[in-house]
Amino acid sequence: MTTITAVTAHDVRFPTSLTQDGSDAMNKDGDYSAAYVVIHTDDPAIRGYGFTFTIGRGNDLCTEAARQRGLPLVGRSVEDSVADLGRVYRELASDSQLRWLGPDKGVEHLAMAAVMNAMWDLAARVAGVPLWRLLAEMSPEQLVDAADLRYLSDALTRDEAIAILTEKAPTRRQRIAELESTGYPCYTTSAGWLGYSDDKLRRLLQEAVDAGYKHIKLKVGANRDDDIRRLRIAREVIGWDAKLMIDANQVWDVPEAIEWIGALAEFQPHWIEEPTSPDDVLGHAAVRRAVAPIGVATGEHGMNRVLFKQMFQAEAIDYCQLDSARLASINEILAVYLMAAKFGVPVCPHAGGVGLCELVQHLSIFDYVAVSGSLDDRVTEFVDHLHEHFVDPCIVRDGAYVLPSQPGYSAEMHEESVARYSYPDGGYWASVAA
Amino acid sequence: MTTITAVTAHDVRFPTSLTQDGSDAMNKDGDYSAAYVVIHTDDPAIRGYGFTFTIGRGNDLCTEAARQRGLPLVGRSVEDSVADLGRVYRELASDSQLRWLGPDKGVEHLAMAAVMNAMWDLAARVAGVPLWRLLAEMSPEQLVDAADLRYLSDALTRDEAIAILTEKAPTRRQRIAELESTGYPCYTTSAGWLGYSDDKLRRLLQEAVDAGYKHIKLKVGANRDDDIRRLRIAREVIGWDAKLMIDANQVWDVPEAIEWIGALAEFQPHWIEEPTSPDDVLGHAAVRRAVAPIGVATGEHGMNRVLFKQMFQAEAIDYCQLDSARLASINEILAVYLMAAKFGVPVCPHAGGVGLCELVQHLSIFDYVAVSGSLDDRVTEFVDHLHEHFVDPCIVRDGAYVLPSQPGYSAEMHEESVARYSYPDGGYWASVAA
Repeated sequence: MTTITAVTAHDVRFPTSLTQDGSDAMNKDGDYSAAYVVIHTDDPAIRGYGFTFTIGRGNDLCTEAARQRGLPLVGRSVEDSVADLGRVYRELASDSQLRWLGPDKGVEHLAMAAVMNAMWDLAARVAGVPLWRLLAEMSPEQLVDAADLRYLSDALTRDEAIAILTEKAPTRRQRIAELESTGYPCYTTSAGWLGYSDDKLRRLLQEAVDAGYKHIKLKVGANRDDDIRRLRIAREVIGWDAKLMIDANQVWDVPEAIEWIGALAEFQPHWIEEPTSPDDVLGHAAVRRAVAPIGVATGEHGMNRVLFKQMFQAEAIDYCQLDSARLASINEILAVYLMAAKFGVPVCPHAGGVGLCELVQHLSIFDYVAVSGSLDDRVTEFVDHLHEHFVDPCIVRDGAYVLPSQPGYSAEMHEESVARYSYPDGGYWASVAA
Repeated sequence: MTTITAVTAHDVRFPTSLTQDGSDAMNKDGDYSAAYVVIHTDDPAIRGYGFTFTIGRGNDLCTEAARQRGLPLVGRSVEDSVADLGRVYRELASDSQLRWLGPDKGVEHLAMAAVMNAMWDLAARVAGVPLWRLLAEMSPEQLVDAADLRYLSDALTRDEAIAILTEKAPTRRQRIAELESTGYPCYTTSAGWLGYSDDKLRRLLQEAVDAGYKHIKLKVGANRDDDIRRLRIAREVIGWDAKLMIDANQVWDVPEAIEWIGALAEFQPHWIEEPTSPDDVLGHAAVRRAVAPIGVATGEHGMNRVLFKQMFQAEAIDYCQLDSARLASINEILAVYLMAAKFGVPVCPHAGGVGLCELVQHLSIFDYVAVSGSLDDRVTEFVDHLHEHFVDPCIVRDGAYVLPSQPGYSAEMHEESVARYSYPDGGYWASVAA
């Protein structure tokens, strides 16, 4: 028997604001950061790694919240815990004093994501398989037992969830074989950050086309004339066959969104991402009705499964962009994937940031193998930065994620990276302060 | 000129779990707590006090978040700040790195509430009037300038907001005079906590009737047979003319809520409070359609104005129970009151906890004087505990809040209370640990 001996949490921040990587109409100067959790056991070879993602200030709060949230894990059996991660999740989530601070949203929920991401990483490592395979080898009942279905039964019952998974179970193997050959399709946001010059935009777009991408995303929403000029450049470079997505990062009210998107319609956007407040289910539904056939996408700030349930019920979105470090790990993500399958909405997870690409590749693969069984209209975000800090970085080839093969959730960072970018005492930040 | 010299934040926790005060179906052992903020100036006689409310663990995170959120205030002119609290609010809220942790929800938003509550307290103290009067003396334009209307324009435009306030402006004085005579009507929750025995319930109900209350609230949702027995006791004691409200504190899924409420309908509840997840706009709308004429109330966990906007748009609630320490102070609360007035939904603020009664009396008075101009179907929660820790505690007489008269937002705690209940080093907690 192996025992959890400690849960440590680390405030790791990368100075991305220096290069405006990640700049958009709402977030001009993010320092991509992780509240990084390590689950230690009495066997030095058995650890779990996970994190939530933030963009700088406040990462200390998430780190401390994760440390506190992980305390009840200390002393537990690893084997018992990983055998029933639904129970572990429910126990941690049932702390009613901490629940008051949400429920299921904000700093406390981000911390839950970090801790449970580490527990799922641990489970996959103990099983000796990548997380996508661990999930793909669980039975429909096991998966549904792990899922948090609370508050969802008006949209998805337990029986319906099992039926969705059961239908796809016999053909899981052939889809795994297919993905092992093709990879999982992705798109790139690396070209389109708002802080980049037109020349840099043009160069990066050409590089993306040359690298085989068929989907390209640009940030919009700060200035309408700039948007029109940049979208014209984009269509000049990528042509009209490639799909062009645009992302407003929540800057508009609903009427303004409808008007502004209308002014960009000539560039035939595939989707408009985050047109308004991420909390506004009815607002997204109104935008969607008004801008069709342009699709509406949102989810990176989708706070929890109850929000996504309503997005589906209200027919508010064409694409669900759940976030692997904002939802409370696989337990909650499973519920969103199952609802998306029932309502027929493709899930195209949010990625980028730091480490999100490493996580979401597992989710997309699992979705295709065991839940939706479809690649139609599905494409997963890829942003090409900060992968060098990960022990098992994602690999993208010909516009597709190559299936991860190492055990775990690909969440482990190099110890040197954690040490150097720990805030405020790591080598990098200490040298900046000096 | 007076200058803000420091913003301090204090983790204050009261051991209410010992007596099961505040116990309900979701929250069995809360230690009512405040992340308590003091704004210091270079004039020792001029300070601002505010807080957010939590139920124990995690109050340290809110305290630290409030301390950080208040840092940009240091060095500012008090006079300039209180003259335009809309600008102060927008500047503090515009920190995009902190916004990522919400936006506008969870720990960071609770911290915003604490800091801006202290700023509004400061403004009222500088003006030498209670906060309700400060607000009642602001022009419609000044009030709307202070309000956070972002993401609301599809439900309420700036012009509509001004028109609502302008219509009631000429008659503000007569409503102030009326409330000075009658007070603002309230109801009591003190009798109905779930952890109380039947004998204690019966005794407290009788005391409430004797004290003049015409509205009584009981907690439900843990056990259906217990609920039926307790509601029967309640009707025996209070009769059928008094209004009986029930509160499930989010324990049900939507179908379960509808069924359970149906089983309690014979006791003619006036409203069912928090039947399901506080995030579930469409769920509340479904419950409301199913259980009418029983009203649906929610809001103490209503995370922000965008949530309330949708509650109104979807006709999901009969009573809006906004929370004075969860919404980001007057700036956001104003927006919710204005939307409620437009959509014709009475606001009956959540109170209790620690200090919430002290705050909400100002809100209800202001609503009647300047926004809704109506007392119809409006009643504000009152819970009789922890008032002894406040310098200017609320006063309830004959089932009504007596209008506060001291300058400020009634948020200041006795220094001895803060010292004794500071966690973990205050006298009380140190003695428990020893």
